[in-house]
Amino acid sequence: MSISINSPADFHVHLRQGAISELIVPHVSKGGFDVAYVMPNLKPPVTSTEQALRYKADLERIDPNVTYLMTLYLCPELTADEIRKANKAGVYGVKSYPRGVTTNSDGGIESYEAYYPIFEAMQEVDMVLNLHGEVPSDANTNIHVLNAEPSFLPHLFKIHEAFPALRIVLEHATTRAAVEAVKKCGPTVACSITAHHLALIVDDWAGQSWNFCKPVAKYPDDRRALQDIVREGHPRFFLGSDSAPHPPHAKSTSSPTHACAAGVYTSPILLPLVAHLLESFGALDKLEGFTSVNGRSFYKYPVEGQRYSRTVFLRKTKPGTLVDAKYALGAESLVPFWAGKEIGWEIFDGTAD
Amino acid sequence: MSISINSPADFHVHLRQGAISELIVPHVSKGGFDVAYVMPNLKPPVTSTEQALRYKADLERIDPNVTYLMTLYLCPELTADEIRKANKAGVYGVKSYPRGVTTNSDGGIESYEAYYPIFEAMQEVDMVLNLHGEVPSDANTNIHVLNAEPSFLPHLFKIHEAFPALRIVLEHATTRAAVEAVKKCGPTVACSITAHHLALIVDDWAGQSWNFCKPVAKYPDDRRALQDIVREGHPRFFLGSDSAPHPPHAKSTSSPTHACAAGVYTSPILLPLVAHLLESFGALDKLEGFTSVNGRSFYKYPVEGQRYSRTVFLRKTKPGTLVDAKYALGAESLVPFWAGKEIGWEIFDGTAD
Repeated sequence: MSISINSPADFHVHLRQGAISELIVPHVSKGGFDVAYVMPNLKPPVTSTEQALRYKADLERIDPNVTYLMTLYLCPELTADEIRKANKAGVYGVKSYPRGVTTNSDGGIESYEAYYPIFEAMQEVDMVLNLHGEVPSDANTNIHVLNAEPSFLPHLFKIHEAFPALRIVLEHATTRAAVEAVKKCGPTVACSITAHHLALIVDDWAGQSWNFCKPVAKYPDDRRALQDIVREGHPRFFLGSDSAPHPPHAKSTSSPTHACAAGVYTSPILLPLVAHLLESFGALDKLEGFTSVNGRSFYKYPVEGQRYSRTVFLRKTKPGTLVDAKYALGAESLVPFWAGKEIGWEIFDGTAD
Repeated sequence: MSISINSPADFHVHLRQGAISELIVPHVSKGGFDVAYVMPNLKPPVTSTEQALRYKADLERIDPNVTYLMTLYLCPELTADEIRKANKAGVYGVKSYPRGVTTNSDGGIESYEAYYPIFEAMQEVDMVLNLHGEVPSDANTNIHVLNAEPSFLPHLFKIHEAFPALRIVLEHATTRAAVEAVKKCGPTVACSITAHHLALIVDDWAGQSWNFCKPVAKYPDDRRALQDIVREGHPRFFLGSDSAPHPPHAKSTSSPTHACAAGVYTSPILLPLVAHLLESFGALDKLEGFTSVNGRSFYKYPVEGQRYSRTVFLRKTKPGTLVDAKYALGAESLVPFWAGKEIGWEIFDGTAD
């Protein structure tokens, strides 16, 4: 048995900067994808059209066979004029990070009303707002990593109500509440789901920092809601891997005073992993919808208009096939999610054996 | 300012075996305690009176200045006769571990009815039942590490109803639900609370395996319930540190396939740490009740009947005093909870400077 997918697109990926970027950018293609929707949380964050275009050129230099859809980082410096300029230059979206909840989000937003002029301009030019949907933890109001996403949802509804034509993506949903919220919204609101949140629950990152990411994986019932909406083939839910590599020393917790970085790395095995997971809960027939059609449709980025595209072929692996454990990264090795575990699918060139 | 506490007693502690035992047993006294209620989850578990007495002799050889109150591990091999024998030999209680939820619990129980003859004998001779109050995680029924304790509480009520005169301790409570459940029960049901659960919430162990223990620390509202019941001075709530050392290599998560051991180590700093934490939420006046009076009263183990006892004196530290970061353990170093953090109290000999 083999499967072909028309030009898979990953609508949420971190491609970093510098040495790690040189290593991981080619993994987008290795993982079966030829479109990467690129997050702007660099140091410093990507806040202008010029920066976005420079970053895009960097990425194209590393691997020209992937299309990079660029985003800006929502911040007080951003103006309506810059939005219009970015739109003309082909920048696709603006990403909002609540302050302090994930990697390089210290400059994140605290309230949304201040950004309504930006949203207004985005709505006019039809740019996409990408929301990291968590509020910061606050012990006084009983907000913690496990209810940070449900607690964010009123913000989603409020922004959607104020800007009904603004396309919004609630990124990396992890809860039943988030799935239900997006379903309730109109056709301009969509939702990305990562591969790893289709696999993990809270027990998996308890004591295992390599499975720790933000948003954290939630309860079994939440995972079921994510799996169900994928199996249902709902057109406003699609893959955004949130693939986020960190060097091994940052993922290990070797001392009590050093907490590990949030993020799991799925890029190099992404399409086989998604196939493997969808098969595990009876949704393999939704693979193309989830990894290509739904996201492209929402982003108005059809395969036809794309400069580089390809059909990716998957076949069943031999029993006992394990995920590659590591990729050299200077003196360290970058370790992907699912490393050392069995995986049921692999990419091949589509020719018969 | 100084405080004196009459013979602090730690009603839940893991003293291990072998080399680590030689290191940590003296830490009971170092931490200000002269009574240790000793958990039986060794390899193999302590399931007979003979084993308990041999283990007690080992501990007394290492540090004769602490009184060790011994327990048996609830398992199918245990008989009513053995209970009576253990009771005559001075064994205090029987510890129940649900299968697979914590260190060395593979032989734990799956249902309680099978143990009713044992409970009957324990009730007759007035031995204490110590419950690890969690059910195992089960994705099919949405049981996970964060609701494992609330999901256990019906078992507590059922056993208490069936054996109203049996003294039961719900160990290391972490949730508001558990606190409320124990309050609802009669005078034969009490509850131990650890030091670290007065400090930690889920955010603290997300990505930081050194703060990972079972039961896991819960939500801010749960921590508040624990703090409130201590501040209230409720007589059926007392300290059981659950101090549980693991060597650093077992607490680190250096690879994606190696999850860390559950447990934090508080023994060597226990009384100062508890004073520090109680002071932080306005309960310093309950320190003696929480660390000595309440537990001794429930266990019917007054200071007067104790062979070795002492008054322990605490004074404020100089600002900037940090917890010792490590204790040599062979080629490794055992690292306590709160290592490198400021602590407001220290033990001294009671004489004026």
